[in-house]
This record gives sequence, C-alpha cells and structure tokens, in this order.
Amino acid sequence: MSNYAIILAAGKGTRMKSDLPKVMHKVAGITMLEHVFRSVQAISPKKTVTVIGHKAELVRQVLGDATSFVLQEEQLGTGHAVMMAEKDLANLDGQTLVIAGDTPLITGESLKSLIDYHVNHKNIATILTADAKNPFGYGRIIRNSDEEVTKIVEEKDATDFEKQVTEINTGTYVFDNKRLFEALKNINTNNAQGEYYLTDVIGIFKAAGEKVGAYKLRDFNESLGVNDRAALSVAEEVMRERINRKHMLNGVTFTNPKATYIDIDVEIGADALIEANVTLKGHTKIGEEVTLTNGTAIIDSTVGAKSVITSSTIEHSTLADSVTVGPYAHIRPDSTLEADVHIGNFVEVKGSYIGADTKAGHLTYIGNAQVGSKVNFGAGTITVNYDGKSKYKTVIGDNVFVGSNSTLIAPVKIGDNALTAAGSSIVEDVPADSIAIGRARQVNKEGYAKNKPHHPSQK
Amino acid sequence: MSNYAIILAAGKGTRMKSDLPKVMHKVAGITMLEHVFRSVQAISPKKTVTVIGHKAELVRQVLGDATSFVLQEEQLGTGHAVMMAEKDLANLDGQTLVIAGDTPLITGESLKSLIDYHVNHKNIATILTADAKNPFGYGRIIRNSDEEVTKIVEEKDATDFEKQVTEINTGTYVFDNKRLFEALKNINTNNAQGEYYLTDVIGIFKAAGEKVGAYKLRDFNESLGVNDRAALSVAEEVMRERINRKHMLNGVTFTNPKATYIDIDVEIGADALIEANVTLKGHTKIGEEVTLTNGTAIIDSTVGAKSVITSSTIEHSTLADSVTVGPYAHIRPDSTLEADVHIGNFVEVKGSYIGADTKAGHLTYIGNAQVGSKVNFGAGTITVNYDGKSKYKTVIGDNVFVGSNSTLIAPVKIGDNALTAAGSSIVEDVPADSIAIGRARQVNKEGYAKNKPHHPSQK
Amino acid sequence: MSNYAIILAAGKGTRMKSDLPKVMHKVAGITMLEHVFRSVQAISPKKTVTVIGHKAELVRQVLGDATSFVLQEEQLGTGHAVMMAEKDLANLDGQTLVIAGDTPLITGESLKSLIDYHVNHKNIATILTADAKNPFGYGRIIRNSDEEVTKIVEEKDATDFEKQVTEINTGTYVFDNKRLFEALKNINTNNAQGEYYLTDVIGIFKAAGEKVGAYKLRDFNESLGVNDRAALSVAEEVMRERINRKHMLNGVTFTNPKATYIDIDVEIGADALIEANVTLKGHTKIGEEVTLTNGTAIIDSTVGAKSVITSSTIEHSTLADSVTVGPYAHIRPDSTLEADVHIGNFVEVKGSYIGADTKAGHLTYIGNAQVGSKVNFGAGTITVNYDGKSKYKTVIGDNVFVGSNSTLIAPVKIGDNALTAAGSSIVEDVPADSIAIGRARQVNKEGYAKNKPHHPSQK
Repeated sequence: MSNYAIILAAGKGTRMKSDLPKVMHKVAGITMLEHVFRSVQAISPKKTVTVIGHKAELVRQVLGDATSFVLQEEQLGTGHAVMMAEKDLANLDGQTLVIAGDTPLITGESLKSLIDYHVNHKNIATILTADAKNPFGYGRIIRNSDEEVTKIVEEKDATDFEKQVTEINTGTYVFDNKRLFEALKNINTNNAQGEYYLTDVIGIFKAAGEKVGAYKLRDFNESLGVNDRAALSVAEEVMRERINRKHMLNGVTFTNPKATYIDIDVEIGADALIEANVTLKGHTKIGEEVTLTNGTAIIDSTVGAKSVITSSTIEHSTLADSVTVGPYAHIRPDSTLEADVHIGNFVEVKGSYIGADTKAGHLTYIGNAQVGSKVNFGAGTITVNYDGKSKYKTVIGDNVFVGSNSTLIAPVKIGDNALTAAGSSIVEDVPADSIAIGRARQVNKEGYAKNKPHHPSQK
Repeated sequence: MSNYAIILAAGKGTRMKSDLPKVMHKVAGITMLEHVFRSVQAISPKKTVTVIGHKAELVRQVLGDATSFVLQEEQLGTGHAVMMAEKDLANLDGQTLVIAGDTPLITGESLKSLIDYHVNHKNIATILTADAKNPFGYGRIIRNSDEEVTKIVEEKDATDFEKQVTEINTGTYVFDNKRLFEALKNINTNNAQGEYYLTDVIGIFKAAGEKVGAYKLRDFNESLGVNDRAALSVAEEVMRERINRKHMLNGVTFTNPKATYIDIDVEIGADALIEANVTLKGHTKIGEEVTLTNGTAIIDSTVGAKSVITSSTIEHSTLADSVTVGPYAHIRPDSTLEADVHIGNFVEVKGSYIGADTKAGHLTYIGNAQVGSKVNFGAGTITVNYDGKSKYKTVIGDNVFVGSNSTLIAPVKIGDNALTAAGSSIVEDVPADSIAIGRARQVNKEGYAKNKPHHPSQK
Repeated sequence: MSNYAIILAAGKGTRMKSDLPKVMHKVAGITMLEHVFRSVQAISPKKTVTVIGHKAELVRQVLGDATSFVLQEEQLGTGHAVMMAEKDLANLDGQTLVIAGDTPLITGESLKSLIDYHVNHKNIATILTADAKNPFGYGRIIRNSDEEVTKIVEEKDATDFEKQVTEINTGTYVFDNKRLFEALKNINTNNAQGEYYLTDVIGIFKAAGEKVGAYKLRDFNESLGVNDRAALSVAEEVMRERINRKHMLNGVTFTNPKATYIDIDVEIGADALIEANVTLKGHTKIGEEVTLTNGTAIIDSTVGAKSVITSSTIEHSTLADSVTVGPYAHIRPDSTLEADVHIGNFVEVKGSYIGADTKAGHLTYIGNAQVGSKVNFGAGTITVNYDGKSKYKTVIGDNVFVGSNSTLIAPVKIGDNALTAAGSSIVEDVPADSIAIGRARQVNKEGYAKNKPHHPSQK
C-alpha cells in the first residue's frame, strides 16, 4: 500500500524570537524543513503535503515543486493542521506519516523503520517514541502489562507513577490514512489550550478497540524538536557530529570534529586533513589529500587533490590539483585556478582565470583578468578593473613577469614573456617579449634627510 | 535588618603560578573579584568590606570606590581575614555575607536566596552548600536525623561514613554580624595549618546551642573556587555557556556556543547570526540581524543592524547599519563607518571617519582621514599620514574616485567628485571635479624582455 | 634483569582508508608510533625491536636509528609479528614488553608500573588491562575467585556471564622473554581468522601452570587503539586535554583548552595567555607573559617574553621579547625579529633580519632583507627581491624612514637615517642621511573629472 506524508510547517515559533518562520532556521547549511523533507523521502511517499501558515510564501519557496502545500490560516493546533490536508489525501488508501518540520535530526532510516513497523504490525496508528533521560515536559507513552500502548499522557495530566515513565512521544506518527481523517472529524477544542490536538485521535482509536503501536527510536537525539535557539544549537551540534563522523569513517582526518563546520552536502576525498575551525559550506567538493588549515572557509567551491589551503576564504570558485592558497588569501566568485597555481598572503582573486603554475605571492589584487600559465606577479600588483561605472578586463599571456607594485590599468593586454618594470603604471598594451616601464627616475639628495622629522637629530 | 558583605581577596593563589593576585584573573572579560562583587550587589549590602593583602594596590584598583578595603598584612587564615573587617562592621546590627573573591560563578540570585533563607530561619549562621558528584577534598556538611546541621568536617578528619556525604561547604556564609565578630574572638590557631579557620565559629555557635543552617545551591557549578588555571578554564567554560545561552534565548543564532567567546557585558540583537569562533570583548554592542563569521573579533565597538562582518577585527569603533567588512579587514580605534560602507579584504581603517556608501574594497590603508560619502577607493590606496614624528590628516570629499595604487600624502584635501589617476602620488590638494595625475608615462621596449632572467629562453 | 620491547608496527590499518600506514598517522604533531616509542623509553629497554611490514621503509624513517627493525612480510597475526623478533631477542634473559604502535595514549608511567608489577609478582606473563564502560568487542579478562587471571575470552567466544566482565585486554603485555619465544613455537593458525594469535601464549602458560597476571590501567583512555579516523580524533582530543592541562598547571591561561591545538613538544612560559583556537606546532617555544590571540598559528618558532601575537601566522622564525605582530601578519621562515619590533596587519616578512624597535605597520612585504633598528616602513612598502630567476638582498640601515608605497628594487642599500619619498621606486643605493625620490610630479586638470564615469553627472 502507498505511503503519504504530511509535514507540519505552519508555526511561527515564538520562542525562536525571530522574523523567520521556525522551520526556515538552518542546521548544517539547510533549513530544518529541508532536513525533514529529505528524511521523508526514505519512505518514498506517493504524495507529500506540507502545511504552511506563518509567512507561508517564504516557506513555500524552500521546498518549491517537491511537495504540495496547504495553507493553515489560523494555527489551531496539530490536529487542525493535519485537517488541512484532508482535501489532498482523505480518499486515498495507505498510510500517512505525520511529522513536524522542526525535527531536523530524524533520519530517513528511522522513518522507514517506523513505516515498516506500522505495516508489519497492521496498526491503525503508530507513535514514534524515544527513551528520554529527563522526560520532564514530554507526553509519556503508557503501556499495559502486555507492553501495548494504552495512551499518551501529557506532563500536566500525568500521575506521579506516569511521570516516572521515560518513553516519550516524539510527535511523529504513522496513521492509516483514511482512518486518520475520519477520526479527525471527531476531535474538538475542549481542552486547556482550546486547540485541536492530533494526539486525541489516538484516544479515539483506542476507544474503538483499534490497534495502536509505538516504535522506539534507538537514539533519543533524533527526536529533538527545536523550539528556541538553544535547541537549534544542539541540533547543529548533533548534525555536525554525524556529518564529521561520516567523513572520518571515509578516511578524512579531523583535528577537532567538534569544532569543524561542514554543511551536509559537502564532499571530501580520502586522506584529506581538515584542521580545526574549518568551515565548508554549500556544495563544496574537496579532493583527496587536500590540507585545509585552521580558519579556512570554503563556500560552494571545488578544490582539487593535493591542494593546500591555509587560513583563507574561497567562494564559488574552482581550484585544480596541487593549488596552494594562503594564509589570508581571498578567492572571490567565478575564479578558476589551474593546477599548481600559488596564491599567497593578502592576495585577492576575483572573477579571473589563472593558468597553470602561475604565482601571485603577496599583496596583489587580480580582478576580471585572464592570466596565462607560468606568470609571476610581483608583490603589490593591482589590476585596475573599474572606472567608477564599468569593469574592464586585463589579459596576460604565458610566462609574463609582472614587476612588483605594478598598476595594470584595464583594458590592457600583456603579451607572452613580457616584463613590466617594478613600480610601473601600465596603461597601454605590452607586446610579447617586451619590457614596459612606467616609473619616474630616482634622484638622491645627499644630506637632505638630516632636517626631516624622522631623523635622529630632530628627536 | 541590614545586609553587609565581606569579600575575601587577600590571597596570592600560589597554584595559579602567576604574578597577578588570584582574584584578578579574568573570566569572560572581567576579574573574578568583579564577578563576585556584582553578585553581592543582589543582597543590596549597606556596607561592603573587601579584605586585600597580596599586591593590595592592584586589587584595590579593580573595585575602586565601590567598596571599602581593609588590609590583611599577613595571611593567617580565613578567620583572620574576616577579623580585619571588625573595625568597619562589628557594631552593626544585621547579617553579613562572607564570600571568597575566587568564586566567580556564584549568582546574585543564589546569594539573595541564601540571605532570605538565613533571615527567614532566624539562623545565627547559614552555610552555603552544594551537592558534589565527587566530594573528595571538600568540607562535608554533617546533619542529624532532623536534617539540622551539626558540623562541618574536613576531608582529613572525616570518618568513612562522613566521607560518603556529598553535601559540601562552598566557603560562603551568612552570619549574624555582631555574633560573628564576638565568636571570632574565641577562635585560635591550634590546628594543623596554624591558621585561624572561619569554620571554627560554626563549632562555637553549635556549642552555644545556636541555630546554624545550610542553604543548598541548585547548581554545584556555582560553588566552583578557582585555585589553578585548570579551574579557571572551567569557570570560563561555565560562564561562556551561561552567557551564550542567555543570548540564544533572546533570539541570537550560534553555530557553536561552546566555541564562541563573548564577554559578560556584550549586547546582541535578535536574529543576529554568530558563527563559531567569534570573539566579542568589552562593551561591544551588536545590532539586530547582524552576521559575524568565524574568526571575527570585536572589541569595545558598536555594529549597526544588518551589518556583515566576515573574519575581521574591529576595535573601539562605531559601525552604522548595513556595513560590510572583510574578510581579513582591520578597523582600528576611533573609526566611524556610516551606513552601507564597504571595507574589503586587507583594508585597514584607523582613526578615520568614513561617510555613507563609501567603498574601500582591497589592500588599502585609510588613516587619520575624513572621508565623504559615495567615495570609491581603488585597490592599493595608501594614505600617508606620518612623517616619522607627527600625524597628518587626509580630507576627501563626496563622490571622489581614488585611483588604484594611489599614494595620498597628507596633509592633503581632495574635493568633491574629483578623481586621482591610478598609480599617482598626490601631494597637493585636488580641487573639486578635477583630475589629478602624478605618474610616469609608459614606455615599451620591444623585444628587450628576451634577455631577462624570467624569459623562457633564459631557463 | 633487563627489559626489552617489541613494537608492532607492520599493519596497514585498512579502516583508516589511507595511503599512509596506520602507525604513521599523527596525534598532537608526532606519529602514533613515536608516541608509543617515547612511552616505551620509560622502561629503559636494553633493546627495542620494531616490527614493520606495510610500507616498511616509510615507517623505518620515523624512528631511524633509535630501534632495530624486523620485517614481517606477510601479516599473519600478532603472534606471527612477535615471532619476527626471535632472532634479535630469543636468547636474552629478562622481560619483554609487547605493545602495538597504534596505542598512542599509553603513558610511560603506566608501562613502568606494568613492568614493575610483572617483576614484583614474578609472573611469566602480565597483561595490561583496563576497565571499560562499554566492553563490547574487547577480549575480557576472566579471573577466578582468588582474582587470578585464568584466561582472555574474545567477544565472540564469551558466555553471557563473561560478557558482563568490564576488565578488558588492552593488547599490551609483558612476558618473560625466553619463555615468550618458546611458547610462540607452539601456537598455530587453527582459528577463525587463520592467524597466529599472541594471546594463545597466555593459554599455553596457564596450561603449564605458570603465573599469569594482569595490571590494570587507572585510566581507560590510555588503552585506546586507533583503528579509524574517528578513533584518531578521540586520541587527538585526549592528548590535547593532557597537554593543555599540563600547561595550565604550569601557570598558562587558556580561554578554551578544548579548542586550542598544541603539539606535544611545545614549551610555554608562565602567565602566557593563549586564547581559543591557537595552533602551536613542532618545537615552538613561547615566552612568559606572551599573549596569543584567536587564530594565531605558530610553527617551529620562538616567541620572546611579553610579545603579543594577534591572529597571525609565524613559521620557523625567532622573535625576541616584546614583539607585536598582527592581526593578519605572516612571518615566513628564517626571519629574526629583534626586541620591540612591530609587524602590523597585512605585512609579510620572509628570510629577513629586522633590528630592534623597527616598525612595519601595514601592507608591506619585506623579503630577503637586512634591516637596522628604529626603521619605519610606510604602508605599502615592497622589497623587490626576485627577478624571475634569482633572489636579491635589500639592506637598510638604522633610523631609516621608508616612505609609503615605496618599491625597493634589490639589490639595493639604504644608508642610516635616509628617507625615501612616498610613492618612489628605489633602484639605486641611497647614501646615509639622504633623501631619495623616484616619483612623478602631480598635475591637476581642473574640471576634467566632470566627464569621467565616476562623476555623479554621469550616473
């Protein structure tokens, strides 16, 4: 029989104290809602309905066409939220997973096991539960002497005996789909909060003598629901541990996996060394035997094998093999660095192509440039690519030697093997094999320094 | 009745192995002594006496006029230290808190509860206690079958049964003030250490049939006394957790609160994102929706809403809203950056005013400058503000375009809308709407590069 | 009687998923094999035999002449590995420590205690054991009612009762040397793995009625065997804690010892302040009262007392007392900075000597230079030390004032007290007390900026 899924993503999340809807807060680089959506794919739902409400349009954009959306205009409780999906789902045969969009740590494996358990036990409803060290505040799962679930008891309604129970309701369920929507017609708002509780359907099923089961998570952490930023940071910590452990088991060395920040979709090759406090965001790919030292941040970029990035920042760029960068270098978007390129300290590359084996070791800005191979940039080289309105291109051939403190005023071309003298402003094209000089001649005024403020005689 | 406080801050702290007196070591940006002093304010003491001894003058400066000081010339034990306050306090009615200056984690709430408990129970003395997981080394609180405190037993004097007790003496007490000083007259140095023990007054009260109580801290961590740097790092860790949790509950996102270093007086607006390994010191204020990326350090500065600071250092400066800085930028003291200013990589700003919407994107030094709005600094711009003896000012109007690799030699003024050619040295004022050029003309020597060392033919 | 040691270092370590042999992976800056070798020195072995196999030559280079090596060509089990040492050791009287090269956390103190226990108890074999919280997967130590060791039981052979035992075999042993090699002749490969198990000799000794003992580690962590990168990161974490605790007890302040990365041979003076996320590698020595702020990385360098290094990188260099560096500065190899030198933001020093009290505050490259004392480098100074083939030297006298944006084209000498004008290219030597100017004269073209793209009238 088919699986369906309802994701509850309508809430504001008041305790987040945020302008953003709760489910849009991110963990390891993607929203909590995306985490839940990804895990839900493990049950191959024939149809997924996401219930949105607070800032619905923002939330809708996160999942786009991957799900259908229903709007819960007023937030009248979890039961009410699920009712919103009635039109989309109520007539279908099969079972429906109901999950909150603020539980980013639940794994696809657990959801798959939950569904399997539900189906194999021919339950009408199955509650996903977990053992809590400190169950205070959670709904407790009450079982009879045959271990059958008899009810869910909320903290405030629990007897002292029931409060001792450590098996808690995670807020994720599987229901027989048709029976779910039938039962929802019979719940009401006669309770303390004046809300429709989804858990009330469990009571309805039990009253009808139906089979209600519970499937217990092996790891309590998976059940974490994020209600404030403290919980958000715990979700981030658990996810970080999970991601970094995966990379370690794949052969990546981490100096301190507890202080290394890698988004969920990042790929890393074997024998890479990731020092502490490295940040890898988005769809970054790191090759084999790469070394990333402390403080390096790489965003949506590819770094080839055996490259060494030292305390630098790389954004939306592609680095080939054996590239060395840093420390304190900045590769800005749309840059391509071919093999064996060296970019040293205080060098910025922006929107440029840098050919193989080219070196820019110090205090240089290369912007909007097309640079050949085996070029040497002297320290302090500046490509002048902007006139206050438009950007212009600098084209540099192979084997060019750009003298230190050169100012290359684009648009300008420097031919193969050419040389610019240190300290020169280059405004015209330089033919291949030529020397370009654009600097003033030095004059020494002997003895004149004696009256200058820096002179020891003046102090 | 009035409250009084005695803070014990005379010790050297030998195990700290430091030139600094123990209580002057810092936790989250302020000395341990200040932490204790702040917590003590929760009981609104009519008089506070701080007992100083080792490097007394240094310690005195920390609290200044906020307390009176008495000098304990020789350190003859805690009882002796409290005796030093006799002249200041002995004749007053009320109760006196005695607390060590090396317990930075005790909260004002706990001290208030301790005083209230003492007063409500009409005790002569009340001991602040805590439950220790591992009580080894602490004085144990021995109670009779009615839960009344009968004595404090030190580790070395404890029976095996007493050693099992986990309730320990934190070293903080409240006493009936007059009775405290009477009892102190009857303690002596007939003990292993040859010191006056403050705890001996408890025995005196018990022997006289007086009521001695104990108030137990909910959180053992609060009782931590710092005797070496390992304990100091634990105090820092607990304080860090406390501070960061407060900010998280106020709506600030932390990537890793265990590795984010925020001094106790820092303020942060809601929906700010603080990546791991950010350091915020002193009286820094961070606006709403600000993003601070990994490695950023901000000291005694204000950052306006929606600003983004990427891996940069900011000291004693003021940034308006929507300012972007970094990565690897340095805002030095006495700088003001107006709204929408952009300071990019390898740019230093020092003692300067930068008008709104001005951009200095790369490799630039702006020192002692007054800069208008909508100015564009080309890469490699240097303001020359120092002649070896004095500093001079650079004044730049609105909409100025400073060409790349410009050298602006102060004192110099550049008028509104003016432009300096890339690579120029500017020594004279530039009128508004004018172009200033100060660079040599380029000459190409065709073919001359063939004999130069960089040329492929030479290798 | 003499002690001997056999270190097992032949394995590949498949689960490391590495090109490197397992024992060559590093913890706190040195290979696991070196950690084990260092600990082994605590028993003063008369002879140490290291069994190598996978990539034997690489492993051999790590320990060099400090041990003899025997090659285990096929890896046929721990018993087989030890057999390889027969030729070197079998005829000698005394006891032999057998230890795996992948247990980097075992301390010399523990090995010394193990040997002492073995000798004092006149055992034929003594097993190093530990109490495991979760013993699953380990061989269990089975003792009789007199607490005598009767056997080691592997997980898969253990009864339910034996599985409850928490005392586990760490894989480190001491044996009577001659008896070890006799017993090894009687072990075989009739087991599930088809390997020679070293543990089989324990059974042989027991069967012969010999005395087999067990010495239990106080700290389970010491027994950690590293089989994958997750375990490697745990070893790194425990070692980090051990190293940083040692420094704290010596009087060094750490902001966050859990996120501070200090190699095992680093030395640090008292009252140094090490902020979080500092990395100290190799044989670095840090003086007293030094401050190292967040993000600083220092490799094989010496930093003098009272120096302050702010978020900077220092490699293979020597800094005298009271030097200030950073933020974002880079001291490259073979540099010497004398007392009171200041190297500011975006400054690189490479292979240079910098005299006392010299300052290079901003955006400067000093390479292959010999610099006197009290020199001031203006912002943007570049020493041009490379012509595409060779490096040349810049020599600068005392009290020189190097103007901002100067280009010093080596080889070049600047005499004492000389001054170079800001923006100059210096190609010829400058005599002492002289001014050198090499820049073009400024021309203002009034009103000409009105037609330029940056001008407000053009937008």
